[in-house]
Amino acid sequence: MTFETQSTNRAFGGTQGVYTHQSEATGTPMTFSVFVPDHAPDAKLPVLWYLSGLTCTHANVTEKGEFRAACAEHGIIFIAPDTSPRGDDVPDDEGYDFGKGAGFYVDATQEPWAQHFQMRRYIEDETPALIAAHFPVDMARQGITGHSMGGHGALTIALRNPGRFRSTSAFAPIVSPLECPWGEKALGGYLGPDRAAWRAYDACALIADGARLPDLLVDQGTADGFLDEQLKTHLLTEACARASIPATIRMQEGYDHSYYFISTFMAEHIAWHGERLRG
Amino acid sequence: MTFETQSTNRAFGGTQGVYTHQSEATGTPMTFSVFVPDHAPDAKLPVLWYLSGLTCTHANVTEKGEFRAACAEHGIIFIAPDTSPRGDDVPDDEGYDFGKGAGFYVDATQEPWAQHFQMRRYIEDETPALIAAHFPVDMARQGITGHSMGGHGALTIALRNPGRFRSTSAFAPIVSPLECPWGEKALGGYLGPDRAAWRAYDACALIADGARLPDLLVDQGTADGFLDEQLKTHLLTEACARASIPATIRMQEGYDHSYYFISTFMAEHIAWHGERLRG
Repeated sequence: MTFETQSTNRAFGGTQGVYTHQSEATGTPMTFSVFVPDHAPDAKLPVLWYLSGLTCTHANVTEKGEFRAACAEHGIIFIAPDTSPRGDDVPDDEGYDFGKGAGFYVDATQEPWAQHFQMRRYIEDETPALIAAHFPVDMARQGITGHSMGGHGALTIALRNPGRFRSTSAFAPIVSPLECPWGEKALGGYLGPDRAAWRAYDACALIADGARLPDLLVDQGTADGFLDEQLKTHLLTEACARASIPATIRMQEGYDHSYYFISTFMAEHIAWHGERLRG
Repeated sequence: MTFETQSTNRAFGGTQGVYTHQSEATGTPMTFSVFVPDHAPDAKLPVLWYLSGLTCTHANVTEKGEFRAACAEHGIIFIAPDTSPRGDDVPDDEGYDFGKGAGFYVDATQEPWAQHFQMRRYIEDETPALIAAHFPVDMARQGITGHSMGGHGALTIALRNPGRFRSTSAFAPIVSPLECPWGEKALGGYLGPDRAAWRAYDACALIADGARLPDLLVDQGTADGFLDEQLKTHLLTEACARASIPATIRMQEGYDHSYYFISTFMAEHIAWHGERLRG
């Protein structure tokens, strides 16, 4: 399990790196970024996973997420994986919302997707082992967050793995793929028509089926053009209320779906994770 | 003097806009970005100009500069112009360091550049009038900064216009185009072989010829690959010392020439400008 360093840049008193490795899960090279704040030689730092949204690679949040100042302040390692397998051998779809750049953090069971689109295994199993082996991380102190499709990823991975993450948050997440066109297309394509198989990839369904989180922070812009048709934040608010999950779900007036929104609230999310990842 | 709004996004409790107008100076459409923090209805806010480096447009710093949190905190309007005229009618060079994306903030006198490459007039005269007419700015409180070629622009514009800017800073500036290959190529091309004509576009020469600044903040990375051949920060340190300009010129260990460097020190620069632009 090795990886190649694509680049490292000094930033905010730490090191922003970009790395590529050959993934067993996807059968392709995969690229991810890691920010490591400076630390004492033997220190092990907590980790915050950031899962990106549709069309994104590791690069979007790495360039535009404005997370490094807060991660340096709180001593948190920030990891940004890609959103799908890449390469000429990987099947794709004409839409931006399925195929490359749109892995939805699922293990596909349908052809032609099943061979490479194993993003659940990639994020849940393979990448954590790689990170644990190569970076100064304390894997007992992990948090997870993400944006849009990546918010869906963060919520569902945290819900399926109780106890793994001390903290979970999301920016403008897809909260119920069962209830939106993006989800219908992606889960139908990757998993087939049996909607029972989709429930493991639906935050609201997981909560309805008994999964729990200790708490949760979500920010959602009111001017987000995807709110009404795709994101449907209220479904998560209602699911958390029914399950007595103490969720802080904030509607942010005038904010849209872009990195201008994400970067605005990034430092608050990192501080929130930082409180839960301490010591 | 009108402009079109390309986009506005809510960010950090303010509005990040991108605008295009037909420039009289360059004879082309020009695009710039403006961040306006929320403010009282009748308030007039101070302005910080940011001039970008080679190959950049307004977009690089707008997306990667991490300036909005600090501008919101200090109540500063942040303006990022483009670095050259654009369009099919505009002549160009094969290199990244001359022609489009490389206006060097000069008024070209040589053909075929003179028709469109009038970036000094564009930045010094036309854009300020446009900004003053359309944004809630207090033009008595202006600061200027920039990166690399844009640091050269910031320094030379401030030196040539005593009293216009209360504060001047730069990130990894070209300090003496007379003494580096980028400058030789660009000023030779835009202004012709008479090096006496170049002195108005050389920060160190302007200082040697008597121009002064009240003070100055410069950050320069020690791992910047352009430091030795192109940037030559020590020439500015020496020029300021000879002229008794109280310059704070900081060599930042391990930092390179990228936006990872710029964004790291952006908040400190904005705070430094903020102190001088207050009230």
